[in-house]
Amino acid sequence: MSDCTHGIEDFGEKRYIQANEKPMDEKGKYSKEGNCKSKQEKKIIDLTIDENKSLTMSEIEKICRQVIKYSVKTSHGRFHNQLFGQMDPYGLAGTWISEALNTSAYTFEVAPIFSLIETEIIKRICELCGYVNGDGIFSPGGSISNMYGLALARYKRFPNIKTDGMFGLPPLVLFTSEESHYSLKKAAHWLGFGMDNCVEVTTNERGQMSVEDLEDKILQVKAEGRVPLFVNATAGTTVLGAFDDFEKVADICEKYDLWLHVDGCLGGSALFCYKYRQLLRGLHRSNSFSWNPHKSMGAPLQCSLFLTRELELLPKCNSLAVDYLFQQDKFYDVSYDTGNKSVQCGRKVDAFKLWLMLKARGYGSYGRLLDYALDISKVFVDKLRQRESRGFRLVIDEFQYTNICFWYIPEHLRNLEETEEWKQKLYEVAPKVKELMIREGTLMLGYCPLQYRNIGNFFRMVFTCFPVITDSELDFILNEIERLAEQWHKDINGFV
Amino acid sequence: MSDCTHGIEDFGEKRYIQANEKPMDEKGKYSKEGNCKSKQEKKIIDLTIDENKSLTMSEIEKICRQVIKYSVKTSHGRFHNQLFGQMDPYGLAGTWISEALNTSAYTFEVAPIFSLIETEIIKRICELCGYVNGDGIFSPGGSISNMYGLALARYKRFPNIKTDGMFGLPPLVLFTSEESHYSLKKAAHWLGFGMDNCVEVTTNERGQMSVEDLEDKILQVKAEGRVPLFVNATAGTTVLGAFDDFEKVADICEKYDLWLHVDGCLGGSALFCYKYRQLLRGLHRSNSFSWNPHKSMGAPLQCSLFLTRELELLPKCNSLAVDYLFQQDKFYDVSYDTGNKSVQCGRKVDAFKLWLMLKARGYGSYGRLLDYALDISKVFVDKLRQRESRGFRLVIDEFQYTNICFWYIPEHLRNLEETEEWKQKLYEVAPKVKELMIREGTLMLGYCPLQYRNIGNFFRMVFTCFPVITDSELDFILNEIERLAEQWHKDINGFV
Repeated sequence: MSDCTHGIEDFGEKRYIQANEKPMDEKGKYSKEGNCKSKQEKKIIDLTIDENKSLTMSEIEKICRQVIKYSVKTSHGRFHNQLFGQMDPYGLAGTWISEALNTSAYTFEVAPIFSLIETEIIKRICELCGYVNGDGIFSPGGSISNMYGLALARYKRFPNIKTDGMFGLPPLVLFTSEESHYSLKKAAHWLGFGMDNCVEVTTNERGQMSVEDLEDKILQVKAEGRVPLFVNATAGTTVLGAFDDFEKVADICEKYDLWLHVDGCLGGSALFCYKYRQLLRGLHRSNSFSWNPHKSMGAPLQCSLFLTRELELLPKCNSLAVDYLFQQDKFYDVSYDTGNKSVQCGRKVDAFKLWLMLKARGYGSYGRLLDYALDISKVFVDKLRQRESRGFRLVIDEFQYTNICFWYIPEHLRNLEETEEWKQKLYEVAPKVKELMIREGTLMLGYCPLQYRNIGNFFRMVFTCFPVITDSELDFILNEIERLAEQWHKDINGFV
Repeated sequence: MSDCTHGIEDFGEKRYIQANEKPMDEKGKYSKEGNCKSKQEKKIIDLTIDENKSLTMSEIEKICRQVIKYSVKTSHGRFHNQLFGQMDPYGLAGTWISEALNTSAYTFEVAPIFSLIETEIIKRICELCGYVNGDGIFSPGGSISNMYGLALARYKRFPNIKTDGMFGLPPLVLFTSEESHYSLKKAAHWLGFGMDNCVEVTTNERGQMSVEDLEDKILQVKAEGRVPLFVNATAGTTVLGAFDDFEKVADICEKYDLWLHVDGCLGGSALFCYKYRQLLRGLHRSNSFSWNPHKSMGAPLQCSLFLTRELELLPKCNSLAVDYLFQQDKFYDVSYDTGNKSVQCGRKVDAFKLWLMLKARGYGSYGRLLDYALDISKVFVDKLRQRESRGFRLVIDEFQYTNICFWYIPEHLRNLEETEEWKQKLYEVAPKVKELMIREGTLMLGYCPLQYRNIGNFFRMVFTCFPVITDSELDFILNEIERLAEQWHKDINGFV
């Protein structure tokens, strides 16, 4: 289809997203091969591990080449399938160096430079958040960063839970919007709150938390004898990319003395923006903040920060003053040992790759790149509007962030009454087109439903700092969806 | 001192562990420079991040070289400071490849080969554990792996906690030995049990859990109206390297219907041993198991597995059936999507580097390497005994695993009455020698106290698969400790 390869590296493959051997063919559903993909992949690469079989260097090289060949090329310029896109090459350089130095971010003793770098980044980002004297830590991803927020909130209000547990207390409740990330529910489960004590707040058409409903639910929870503790507001929801109104949510949190956490795993990168920074207005009033530079900014996975404006709370909450690692009689300043702040023991060095990126380009560059990504998202929204008569339809007819959600209505479904049956047919389009994308290897784009709104599958295009997408690339994406959807319809008719 | 460099890479440094610029000098305590190390390091590398300053390629290269130069060379053959040692080069190759492919281990869609590889490793290790139809997941480290065990145990016995939380329940209690890893306490804190409901079981001289005390404490907890839930037994404790008696602990767990988790983060690698596999006798009777190949085996950090013999419990406990990621209408077999088993959302690919290692050498090779590491540990114990008259003394006069704990009694402290005051002087030796090691860059070895036994600082030497240590290297280590300790005494006298 397209022979251009935008990626950092396409590892010598023409078909860059999936290889042309069609390893994904499954159960003959679409193709005639009838081979189970997993069986076929197992044949291509012998996955079994043996006790006594070792490989020669050339066999190892061959395996590595095969693994690379059959892996998804997420750094290709046409991979828009997740909230992360192409990797920043400085990030890759950074991660290769820290991997080669293979150390653990618990003590200054074994990670001297990396500890200082982590501290420096946290200080700087805290300043940008408006956290005076804030603190923070790199964690292994947004879900765990959000758990840090919940653990801190609980510790601040009920420090005895650290020793006594949650038994015997009235149920403590967290609030988050129905559009927010599922990690909040997982956190409620793991941390012993229970998912039913993670109360879902309704959202408006755009996916922003309804502050009225938040207040109603807080009062309702109180009336039931449960204890409101924590509100999660989202900067960039997973599907629609919505930003909650932090000022208004903060007002409610102050009124009821609740911890305000901002899940900015996706939208936190707007901190660097020039044109769109106001999306984060009110962030400084939150108590904690999660941000994943491995999403929009192109840092290699994993790169997630948890920040809090509550100085000293993080080590107080999580420290155990362990003798064998955090000896207080070391000859250096042990305040550089970051491990006491962490719920982990050994901890991967995730700070260096981000630091190298920021150092190499200046963080303003990411602001400009993200500004551009948002500008081009807007252009994409306009193009979708212009193509309405050609079957494209926005899920929400407004631009808000990097995620643009839309349907493609194939020709044979256009200008018909939009009955339930019609909708069900429309909702089959995205999964089928997605299947064709993967088989042909021309493009990767996500799809999903919004079940709480009773809306079925639609496409979700995600813009990131990298690749830098041009206007003509937008046309390619739309044309390709059109082509694949119509081809699918033709093929079905051919089969009938 | 020594000019041999065993490491994979010493990045062109003669002084391989710390550079000779003495960045660690601090407050003039020992040296005369009087410079704060952090200030000095900040001078050597400008750590600040700027908004608009970008760097040229040669500036970036220079910074990278400086970072490498001032980082600890954990893969040097004389780094024995943590429970991990030198990195396996196949592991480094594997991690560089998976870093370059930068994907997330949640769905088969974006990590097809890596998902199959993770499944394959888990299947194989479950078999070696004696878990028929077991399941598992790679997690970001041992602390989180242990949390998985506790979360599963809780879910199995009280599935409603997932929705209702722990409020209103009688306190649930976990048991672990006083020698076990502190992550169990952190897990008790985070998961809402409270650290006081993490009951410490006493250990024998060697550091193994007393099964009698375990049973006593279970009965005591029951008598108090608390509910025993979970026992953590350790395969290779952090300091002494002790293995609990899993058969006996399993008997108790079966008698009282408790979940048995084995924290094998350190000692789990003995699965592959030929001579020492019996250390894990009874492991198959446990319900879950944590293992960090990034410790003894030389896999790059992070590489941690959580395994359970309870098939289907892991996804039941942790899944949320999220629409936007785990669509059930995908065209492939969605059972390959591993994300539903995880408490994380985005998850780093940690399986491939381990798989490449096992594939390249055959897992039996790691068994033989670890057998050798244990054999040479034994030789080290013998050498320490032989050098008793030269001031060396074992903390426990028995060999059990890769960790050998010992004191060095400097000449001026020998043949004196071992009063409290004398002991305090002895306990100052290890931190001082450690400081000198770091300043001279000749060796890195850990030290720690065992406060619950009222024992002060001693050295902890740790043997790993890599480097392969020779007999003469053992002499080097002991001679070097001797030399540095005596030099310290002389220097002090010089100052007096």
